[in-house]
Amino acid sequence: MRPIKVVVPFKLDCAKSRLSSVLSSKERRDLALAMLEDVIDSVSGLGEVVILMKDPIPEGKTFDRLRSGQGFEILECPQELDPALNAMIEAEVREGWTSDILIAMADLPLMRSCDLEDLVSTPGDVVIVPGRGGGTNLILIRTPKFRVDYYGLSFLKHLRKAEELGLSAGVFESFRCGSDIDEPSDLVEVLIHGMGRAPELLRNMGFELSGRREKARAGCLR
Amino acid sequence: MRPIKVVVPFKLDCAKSRLSSVLSSKERRDLALAMLEDVIDSVSGLGEVVILMKDPIPEGKTFDRLRSGQGFEILECPQELDPALNAMIEAEVREGWTSDILIAMADLPLMRSCDLEDLVSTPGDVVIVPGRGGGTNLILIRTPKFRVDYYGLSFLKHLRKAEELGLSAGVFESFRCGSDIDEPSDLVEVLIHGMGRAPELLRNMGFELSGRREKARAGCLR
Repeated sequence: MRPIKVVVPFKLDCAKSRLSSVLSSKERRDLALAMLEDVIDSVSGLGEVVILMKDPIPEGKTFDRLRSGQGFEILECPQELDPALNAMIEAEVREGWTSDILIAMADLPLMRSCDLEDLVSTPGDVVIVPGRGGGTNLILIRTPKFRVDYYGLSFLKHLRKAEELGLSAGVFESFRCGSDIDEPSDLVEVLIHGMGRAPELLRNMGFELSGRREKARAGCLR
Repeated sequence: MRPIKVVVPFKLDCAKSRLSSVLSSKERRDLALAMLEDVIDSVSGLGEVVILMKDPIPEGKTFDRLRSGQGFEILECPQELDPALNAMIEAEVREGWTSDILIAMADLPLMRSCDLEDLVSTPGDVVIVPGRGGGTNLILIRTPKFRVDYYGLSFLKHLRKAEELGLSAGVFESFRCGSDIDEPSDLVEVLIHGMGRAPELLRNMGFELSGRREKARAGCLR
């Protein structure tokens, strides 16, 4: 088995804008960073981790921990998501594909190391992990032939792409890996199932479980 | 291993009211029924299936298929969810607990037989399958000591209850089993991941994937 290089694309600028009805701009950035740290913790047992930063890390205390990060590399790359990721894939192709590539979104704070062990033991030239609403929350690429296409319903696009290339595609379905945190109703999942910095941060911000499930699944209050 | 009795609580009256912004009352009932049939298909390999009907099955063509159902029993029970289910559990206790009980919600049309095989091979006196927003989408009960409590954040309540009783609780986490269909933004999951009657019905109603993921994850149109 080849080693795995984990790539986590991340942006701070306008991070988590769909949470703006419940979190301030600073809180959204703090949450994005806490979720990134939780993702790094869960993937770090798999191999080398590269954070693909769309914007430079700003000065300031909040980002000190990330800037001084051990065990991962930060690569600044101003390109959009698809060209940035496909450039990383092509660099690996040029190096002779000595590592497989796992692309993990940065907003998966429910994910645990044990989930990732199950993911990487799933067979397939590519293994796709669906997110809510047709997205691709993680994708493990074991072949130099594949390129990503994240816009729109990327789960179906990635499946179709694999088929067109004659590649085998595995689907790893997981509640925790499938729960990307984008909207206010997602925060309750972090409080219920999260175990790292993101739930701690939300609690420090005053969020708590409301004990109710009704009303568009809000389920938490502050 | 004991055989498994599958219990699926179901109600038609005001079924799926949170979909009323996109589906008429008749369409919601049709969808509820199509989802129930998909659930019956996915669980039917496990053992005896009992549908616990809150209201009597009305006359009419739509319900003929359910009324003439093979391989499952319909039990009319006007009680609320918790007392109805706990009465079934107590009846099993009186019979000497010859079967374990799997309670499956009726709105899980993404669920597949293979997911259920993995669920029933998960260890634990109880095995809990979380749904979105803190719910319990399925629960496998292997002990006469346990009773259910579905209101509110039942996933955490069921975990706590098991702990209080000194029982071991397994968590089976699954994207497909975790996707209960309640709200308009859930319909896209049926179109993407469903394989039975529910996606077929939605397509016949004119729903199709929009190819976009934005705007509260609508992702489908008609």
